[in-house]
Amino acid sequence: MNAPVTGALRAALPVFAFDTDPAAAFIAANDFDRPTLVVSRARIAAKYDALHDGLGRAHIHYAVKANPAPQVIRTLVKKGSGFDCASRGEIELCLGQGARVEDISFGNTIKRASDVAFAHNVGVTLFAADSEAELEKIAKHAPGARVYIRLIVENSLADWPLSRKFGCAASSLAGLLDYARDLGLVAYGLSFHVGSQTRKSEFWNPVLDQVAPLWHAARAAGHDLQLLNIGGGFPAFYGEHIEAPRRYAARVVEAIEARFGMVPELMAEPGRGLVADAGHIAAEVMLVSRKSADDMHRWVYLDIGRFSGLAETEGEAIRYQIVTPHDGGDTGPCVLAGPSCDSADILYENRPVNLPLALRDGDRVLIRNCGAYTSSYSSVGFNGFPPLDVIVL
Amino acid sequence: MNAPVTGALRAALPVFAFDTDPAAAFIAANDFDRPTLVVSRARIAAKYDALHDGLGRAHIHYAVKANPAPQVIRTLVKKGSGFDCASRGEIELCLGQGARVEDISFGNTIKRASDVAFAHNVGVTLFAADSEAELEKIAKHAPGARVYIRLIVENSLADWPLSRKFGCAASSLAGLLDYARDLGLVAYGLSFHVGSQTRKSEFWNPVLDQVAPLWHAARAAGHDLQLLNIGGGFPAFYGEHIEAPRRYAARVVEAIEARFGMVPELMAEPGRGLVADAGHIAAEVMLVSRKSADDMHRWVYLDIGRFSGLAETEGEAIRYQIVTPHDGGDTGPCVLAGPSCDSADILYENRPVNLPLALRDGDRVLIRNCGAYTSSYSSVGFNGFPPLDVIVL
Repeated sequence: MNAPVTGALRAALPVFAFDTDPAAAFIAANDFDRPTLVVSRARIAAKYDALHDGLGRAHIHYAVKANPAPQVIRTLVKKGSGFDCASRGEIELCLGQGARVEDISFGNTIKRASDVAFAHNVGVTLFAADSEAELEKIAKHAPGARVYIRLIVENSLADWPLSRKFGCAASSLAGLLDYARDLGLVAYGLSFHVGSQTRKSEFWNPVLDQVAPLWHAARAAGHDLQLLNIGGGFPAFYGEHIEAPRRYAARVVEAIEARFGMVPELMAEPGRGLVADAGHIAAEVMLVSRKSADDMHRWVYLDIGRFSGLAETEGEAIRYQIVTPHDGGDTGPCVLAGPSCDSADILYENRPVNLPLALRDGDRVLIRNCGAYTSSYSSVGFNGFPPLDVIVL
Repeated sequence: MNAPVTGALRAALPVFAFDTDPAAAFIAANDFDRPTLVVSRARIAAKYDALHDGLGRAHIHYAVKANPAPQVIRTLVKKGSGFDCASRGEIELCLGQGARVEDISFGNTIKRASDVAFAHNVGVTLFAADSEAELEKIAKHAPGARVYIRLIVENSLADWPLSRKFGCAASSLAGLLDYARDLGLVAYGLSFHVGSQTRKSEFWNPVLDQVAPLWHAARAAGHDLQLLNIGGGFPAFYGEHIEAPRRYAARVVEAIEARFGMVPELMAEPGRGLVADAGHIAAEVMLVSRKSADDMHRWVYLDIGRFSGLAETEGEAIRYQIVTPHDGGDTGPCVLAGPSCDSADILYENRPVNLPLALRDGDRVLIRNCGAYTSSYSSVGFNGFPPLDVIVL
């Protein structure tokens, strides 16, 4: 690595307030021999406090899949967070970091039967489901458990609306609640997800308008629902304005109470919203080229791509911001791509990114707000590149 | 795992000739507690022989990224294969398995400078490039090396045409060859790629028609080109007819010689074409459900998805065939999805797959011809699921 470049990158970094962004300061002050995610626990703790304040009595269950670094889990255990786990592996991780079993929910609607049995045996009592077959599986392997039914919601205004993979249609809800009760389970609540990266709190309203009548109807039908799990969707900053987290969370809760009244238990599952801003990736430019002399744009190849940590650039959905040592100079449009010999390993092509004309191979760059959904998506070693390195401060 | 299901899966498997498909036989005879790729070295060796026969004097450089299992590399070392490496990691892997350094090419057009220096220091002398900046990097860190220039080719008839990520425009070729010579490098040849999974040998013709005039023009301009690297594109069977490998390879070489004459050195880089058919994945159905009572199709969730090995289902490009214990019974359309809490983890939705109506959670299935681009794409642990397990027979 090139010491002068380090200095140049630091010069490019005053966009960050170093005293409140330890990960950026660490990246500017150090050299890395491969792509490295640097995450600040202090920033996660501060974000937890802001969301916790805004959410009021709604309990946070951190979506572990967003960043399963053990130090991140332990930090959130100390803050009093609960944990939304997708698998046996995530449950073991949280227990290993000191989480109380009563603070763990098994939120995947697609569970291996032996994992349900494992969760039941260690004391997990709260499970998600969206189908008869899953309820039968839970009833068999975790008899008497509390279940919440996940609903499909439509017309999401999120930056990354979810597919129909999870949830049941509204028309199926009553039957599933009845079936859960008939199987000896506790029909405990409902869940939904507004969609990933829902930038404005008011975008929640159309979704809440769909769910509230179903909640009231289920209670009217005799199901003593206790839990409303509002899922995730809490946004991170990727260049477009978002509301401050405390205010955002408070407005979401306000919108819920206006429609649902006093729900006995509220649960929120932020993942991205808790950890994305707390981490940045230190990366390096591998090559800058043009395909022909008259090409309108350059191709910029980084040492990290879709298969080594930046999977969320699929469909150019999440647009990471890149800090370079040449920021402030003249810029031009670039296609941004990863280093692998895979033709699909392109980050931004349909909407090219503007980067400095002075950018060269060997330049170190910082990719902002990569704390969520990067390290765990990284491949084990595609093209012989090692997985994304992670440093937790 | 369920012993009777094992028996049922075996009963469903007579589509395979067990004596020639050791991986299928192994899967039918064993239980697995997580998704597992089983690969047969004997099948790879047989495929190598067929391609080698068909390719004649063209030297095979196996595209290591397709399946970097050390035992696979060692098998191909023993067969006399060369190796197309994408990174320092892949070069180290091949050397560690006994490959001769003169049989290794560094085929990535996007190389880290320190990796070029590493390759040069261990004795690699053949490098790919498609830009001035990459040639400068090679000249600096591997002075005197042989380079081949990769070309963009258009109008590919492949099942998965490549993007413009790799290669230079035809208009840039002469300048790059001159520049390589001026930098003290050996302008050694050209390369191109017809596109992944090019099912018919005649699909090569339009691409060869583009490259041949460039080859002849470069030689006429005084570049004593020695090497034509025809890349990969050799197909595997995913349900649509493909030609037998020996015949396919022979017809490709015939088409090349008709256009290029007697090229001093021919090189081919099969990856998928060598290893895909040699491996199958043992998987399990996690859940079968409908979103509502009047849903036209079912959702079938497997314990493996896009982030745990089946990345090539992106855009529904590669359509894997699924063998189930209920094959032969009535079928219906299914959306097929992975087990993670990621809404993008859907394998086939736009073109649903027909699967038996009797399919249930807990059923073991076999996913055919997964030997290529599965294990190395697998994430390190997204959603707490371990990476794809690999057993090499």
